[in-house]
Amino acid sequence: MAHDHRFRRHDLEAFVRQVLEYFGVPAADAAIAAARIIDADARLVESHGITRLPAYARRLREGGYNIRPVIGVVHETPVSALLDGDNGLGQVIMTKATELAIEKALASGIGWVGVRGSNHAGAGGVYASMVSEQRLIGMYMAIGNANHLPPWGGREPLMSTNPIAFAIPSGQRPDLVFDMATTAVSYGRIKLAAQRGESMPEGWMVDQDGQPLTDPTRSSEGLLLPTGGYKGYGLGLVVGALAGVLNGAAVGSATVDFNADFKTPTNTGHLIVAIRPDLFGPVQDFEVRMESWLRELTGSERLPDVDRIRVPGDQIPDRLDAAEHDGVRVGAANLVLLNELARETGAEFPAPLA
Amino acid sequence: MAHDHRFRRHDLEAFVRQVLEYFGVPAADAAIAAARIIDADARLVESHGITRLPAYARRLREGGYNIRPVIGVVHETPVSALLDGDNGLGQVIMTKATELAIEKALASGIGWVGVRGSNHAGAGGVYASMVSEQRLIGMYMAIGNANHLPPWGGREPLMSTNPIAFAIPSGQRPDLVFDMATTAVSYGRIKLAAQRGESMPEGWMVDQDGQPLTDPTRSSEGLLLPTGGYKGYGLGLVVGALAGVLNGAAVGSATVDFNADFKTPTNTGHLIVAIRPDLFGPVQDFEVRMESWLRELTGSERLPDVDRIRVPGDQIPDRLDAAEHDGVRVGAANLVLLNELARETGAEFPAPLA
Repeated sequence: MAHDHRFRRHDLEAFVRQVLEYFGVPAADAAIAAARIIDADARLVESHGITRLPAYARRLREGGYNIRPVIGVVHETPVSALLDGDNGLGQVIMTKATELAIEKALASGIGWVGVRGSNHAGAGGVYASMVSEQRLIGMYMAIGNANHLPPWGGREPLMSTNPIAFAIPSGQRPDLVFDMATTAVSYGRIKLAAQRGESMPEGWMVDQDGQPLTDPTRSSEGLLLPTGGYKGYGLGLVVGALAGVLNGAAVGSATVDFNADFKTPTNTGHLIVAIRPDLFGPVQDFEVRMESWLRELTGSERLPDVDRIRVPGDQIPDRLDAAEHDGVRVGAANLVLLNELARETGAEFPAPLA
Repeated sequence: MAHDHRFRRHDLEAFVRQVLEYFGVPAADAAIAAARIIDADARLVESHGITRLPAYARRLREGGYNIRPVIGVVHETPVSALLDGDNGLGQVIMTKATELAIEKALASGIGWVGVRGSNHAGAGGVYASMVSEQRLIGMYMAIGNANHLPPWGGREPLMSTNPIAFAIPSGQRPDLVFDMATTAVSYGRIKLAAQRGESMPEGWMVDQDGQPLTDPTRSSEGLLLPTGGYKGYGLGLVVGALAGVLNGAAVGSATVDFNADFKTPTNTGHLIVAIRPDLFGPVQDFEVRMESWLRELTGSERLPDVDRIRVPGDQIPDRLDAAEHDGVRVGAANLVLLNELARETGAEFPAPLA
């Protein structure tokens, strides 16, 4: 397998922007989507970054997106909104939803924004982090865009990866940013394994008879398993209810498989919540407590073979720095498709850094 | 092992009330706590019901509780409150917190109530259900009262079971009620295994060298494992931040082990959130959508050895009915300690149903 290359972050964003604009996405929206997509790569959540661009492009090509959506508020109170994304790019819709949640939290303490009529928006941690960068607490949930998981005891894949993410400011330490699929792994991680020619460990998927499935190229035949067994199933249902059913988004058999159908609107549901920590006391005190608690955990005694105790999100600032200084890594498996996109759209695929 | 007995729900509540009153708890508070405690047993969350009464009694006996707490609002907005429980009974504090969250949600759409200065409050699903009984969406988190879990890669138990619960109204179906510890199991479940003379499956605990520990009577030597590995660790941190750090409750090494220390105030943290579904559209439409989604899941094709697909909470109405009509089951292992409490306090331990 060819080795990965690194690219200037700015160049990759410009490429994504040009591709999206080629398909008619307005420049401002293309810039927003490009920033969110490459942010995922810069954080090394590569399963949700530029690797998805060919699929987004195909959906644009086949008319599955509304390239000029009117993203509208359906219901609104000082602490909440329901946003209809009008089938636009998920990254654009969720950026607006996150900005609205932040605005409401700053004005009213809490901002809970539900979203329907959206599409795949990439990595949840990216939106939760937009909230914590404002020194607010962020919570994100989303309905996955393809059903790979049966209900507990079932064999019909009627549920998706339904991820949940939190970002919590933590003083001088990096924000606590935690992003998980309620399945054993995200489907993006399985696609990455297939691209990389890796096999899957047992516990990720089973086949239709309930037997372990370890070949990621056969993933379409298999069923994803929930994380932690019944607990992951329960959490996935909660995400389904709050990000999906509550907002009137598609759940269950109404879910559109965005890997197989590039035309039908997916009516994807998300939610993003922003909470002002100073509802519960001085924000400075809260952040000092967060910092000292996390320092106690990471400074505690380690198991023999462990060189460092980490908290989720710890590595993000270093990764973003590295992306800035050493470039953003793009897996070799993506380069063929991205270069095809460049040829089709006339967008300039950048030269790798030396 | 002697078999379990069933008792009239009303009789068990009266017994708990009398025990608490014997130790000086005011009648109104004793009634509230008794109702919450026996509700857990009636729902068959027996690890968090009357089995805990001897430990609560010991803490009362040794002065670890404030029997006449002034449960006060420290900070408040239309959508939030921080409550200081003044070291009262956890069940009493969390009942007031839940009522306050409901009141705020009804008035302002969302009510987020953080709690510090509390104590073990029993089963989280009980409080989340109080919210969903008002046709609101409930979310509960709590800091566990004893550290049994190291951070990921560590060996010092600096974290607890940190449970999370949700309750979501679902039309004509039972509310979706999901209650999980972020550990592989709750510590209460391990105590129950010890009481019942059962061994633990691998994956619940490891010893100090990281080797599987299956004897629940040795649980004090062991370390609990998070559910789903790193994901349970991350969720437990989020609960620690939102139910603990945000409210100024005890976390990390400040956690008081309520199994070993019956005098020091635990400064337990919780949070309870109530959300009005009609923030996002007509409540009736939401409930109809919930109902039909859950019906689709539970009615879908089953694996060969499965007789029924369930959703968390499905069994609660039947269990509550059975508790009403056939009595509440109390494990034989509890009867000795409960009868001792009866003798000490003069409370009347009821006769079992025939």
